[in-house]
Amino acid sequence: MPDKCLFKQLVRHYYFILFIVIRGISMTVKISPLAPKTFAKLPPIKGVRLQTTEAGIKYKGRTDLLFIIFDEAANVAGVFTRSKCPSAPVDHCRKILSHGVARGVVINSGNANAFTGKNGIATTEATAKAAADCLGSKPQEIYLASTGVIGEPMDASRFTGLLPEMAKNAKEDKWLDAVKAIMTTDTFPKLATRTIDFDGHPVIINGIAKGAGMIAPNMGTMLSFIVTDAPVDAAILQEILSDKVRDTFNAITVDSDTSTSDTLLLFATGTANKEIKSLTQKNDPRYQALAEGVYEILHELSLQVVTDGEGAHHLIEVRVEGATTNEAAKTIARSIANSPLVKTAVAGEDANWGRVVMAVGKAGVEADRDRLAIWFGPHRLAVDGERDPHYSEEEASNYMKGTHIVIKADIGLGNGCATIWSCDLTKEYVEINGDYRS
Amino acid sequence: MPDKCLFKQLVRHYYFILFIVIRGISMTVKISPLAPKTFAKLPPIKGVRLQTTEAGIKYKGRTDLLFIIFDEAANVAGVFTRSKCPSAPVDHCRKILSHGVARGVVINSGNANAFTGKNGIATTEATAKAAADCLGSKPQEIYLASTGVIGEPMDASRFTGLLPEMAKNAKEDKWLDAVKAIMTTDTFPKLATRTIDFDGHPVIINGIAKGAGMIAPNMGTMLSFIVTDAPVDAAILQEILSDKVRDTFNAITVDSDTSTSDTLLLFATGTANKEIKSLTQKNDPRYQALAEGVYEILHELSLQVVTDGEGAHHLIEVRVEGATTNEAAKTIARSIANSPLVKTAVAGEDANWGRVVMAVGKAGVEADRDRLAIWFGPHRLAVDGERDPHYSEEEASNYMKGTHIVIKADIGLGNGCATIWSCDLTKEYVEINGDYRS
Repeated sequence: MPDKCLFKQLVRHYYFILFIVIRGISMTVKISPLAPKTFAKLPPIKGVRLQTTEAGIKYKGRTDLLFIIFDEAANVAGVFTRSKCPSAPVDHCRKILSHGVARGVVINSGNANAFTGKNGIATTEATAKAAADCLGSKPQEIYLASTGVIGEPMDASRFTGLLPEMAKNAKEDKWLDAVKAIMTTDTFPKLATRTIDFDGHPVIINGIAKGAGMIAPNMGTMLSFIVTDAPVDAAILQEILSDKVRDTFNAITVDSDTSTSDTLLLFATGTANKEIKSLTQKNDPRYQALAEGVYEILHELSLQVVTDGEGAHHLIEVRVEGATTNEAAKTIARSIANSPLVKTAVAGEDANWGRVVMAVGKAGVEADRDRLAIWFGPHRLAVDGERDPHYSEEEASNYMKGTHIVIKADIGLGNGCATIWSCDLTKEYVEINGDYRS
Repeated sequence: MPDKCLFKQLVRHYYFILFIVIRGISMTVKISPLAPKTFAKLPPIKGVRLQTTEAGIKYKGRTDLLFIIFDEAANVAGVFTRSKCPSAPVDHCRKILSHGVARGVVINSGNANAFTGKNGIATTEATAKAAADCLGSKPQEIYLASTGVIGEPMDASRFTGLLPEMAKNAKEDKWLDAVKAIMTTDTFPKLATRTIDFDGHPVIINGIAKGAGMIAPNMGTMLSFIVTDAPVDAAILQEILSDKVRDTFNAITVDSDTSTSDTLLLFATGTANKEIKSLTQKNDPRYQALAEGVYEILHELSLQVVTDGEGAHHLIEVRVEGATTNEAAKTIARSIANSPLVKTAVAGEDANWGRVVMAVGKAGVEADRDRLAIWFGPHRLAVDGERDPHYSEEEASNYMKGTHIVIKADIGLGNGCATIWSCDLTKEYVEINGDYRS
């Protein structure tokens, strides 16, 4: 009955086109003006299969469940939120991390499974068990992450039944689908990839992330998953991750709010090439190459998270130099990057350096008004405790019309320096977060 | 020539009516929805004369300079911003405070004289000298305060010439005019008064303040001036002020930003009645009465500052109980009160208690998710680490439609408690602060 087939195909096409049109319209309206022009295309990694589905956890008509499967056990490292009220999935991951081995990751959007009491623990246990059953592994080899509303009970039975079919259909070439399923208020998917040399063999590092709001990671970001096919010991992975998170996901802030659910996991499958010897020592010359590759992925993803900060129109890079220590520099940089008055000034494209003085002053660490100098991009606006005599309001105002604003403060006391990335505070941020739950 | 007089009167009347109409229109458009229905009418204090004028420092067509004159020397106490980059007037006041005696206060709006280097110091010196010359006093008896844009040089010659005329015309009944001259983005004047009993004689305490934005006093508020006609030693005044500021001006936050210019001064003229003996000892039974009166003024003014927070639609009262210490409770309360996500949820009238959990978790002090309970007004929404089983979304949502939102968090660990007042974060806040300088 070829006619029936044709009809079915037409129907299928119709819905597909409708989907594209609606998605297109919603993307045009909503996408961050700072979104990258193109997205990285992540190559498949051997033995890493991904599958998404619509579990209807909160959203309708979009994917909200992601299953990442490692066909052979992968080594794993992780860093998590420092919140005193972490989510149930964060508790689960922390507990199993000492095993150092992963066979799968189950991630959902729409519900954070945070502050959900015993129900939350039951949900993580049931999910880990269901996923492990699909893969013939143990629950302590299944990592979990959830993002969305806090405090809503989440019933695992809602999606555990979907995992076997997902495991069956999972494919290696679904990285873009994967990241789309874990978006909440993100307006674009966050992806990064690098290929580096390991003993003459190419090895891949793929990374995905979600961000958008509640971003002042006191450790990592919201959710981010990095996978390499290089063979690397779990302890080495952890060392690289803990080191490289400092100046990447720990150096960004959207709104100074720290999520209950921040989770950053790094996996190594060792599937690139069986001839490559495992990386087990820090003095192995390949350590630096891998660490640099991981840093680049983390840097790229964390900047994508900031540029997709809720309502963001400007990327703000705050560089502090001349503080008494690096720690003091970071405190001052955070004070500037989190100041609502600095962030609204950037939103208004106003070179209001007086608010930078205010933010330096309130940071609480050593500063001397009369040694302070402030730049907006290449323009020095203030020096030696007063307005720069050569300062041109017109030039500074022109600079503020750009989308990447660099604010530099030289404290003039020592050699401590730090950089923090943030975004501006706009009416859209208020709009998004005044309506998020309803 | 009675005709000419009548004409003059008509002209005067015409401008007065025009002023009222324009003021009325602008007030209707702009005034905070949380503004008090009536303003306190401050009684004259003997020997305290006030005068305002239009110096054109930044604003046109409104008063921006206030001269407060003490005909006889008043005792004085003060607390100031803890900013590491304080304004030149703050430096001046701090320097002269040990004298403990005041003859006048010169306050301007439109320019903060902060981060203005040597020019800023020259301006404070010239202003203090000019005011002292008018009054036959010394410069170290003249207090100064400035509020407005940071980093713009301010030339004292712009207004020092106006002071002699102001001193001549100053009157005791101009408290409302006085506070209007020091407003910046305030939408209503902040006033409070009390009369208490001192040895059978009534003594007055009058207070005025300005607030609006850059409000997270790590000590006091923006600018506030309290005057009593009771006879009180400077050391006693200082003791009362330092004690009572803690739970008033130090317990409010609009945007977590601390000004370079926060100044709170308390004066005692002793002009109420010559028969009253001076208060010089803390164990004097009148100490408590005065301290309570000052507390009430500070409390009332600080709440007025919060309800006039830039763009505020809701007053937020955050009460934290059951923390390990009072200090820990205050840290948690501040974390909730400053969280952009909590503040936007209140703006959106959304009982999003999950964000309160987040803010408790990120505060960095001891907390236990599974002992935490959260109330919005009388409604308990969460208890024992999960949503309250008896929680009604409808009741909580109705509660959020009010203008005074009480958020209570019981940490369940000890007896530490604290209250912080704040306001919501609205699109108007972003609008006001994106345009402020231009």
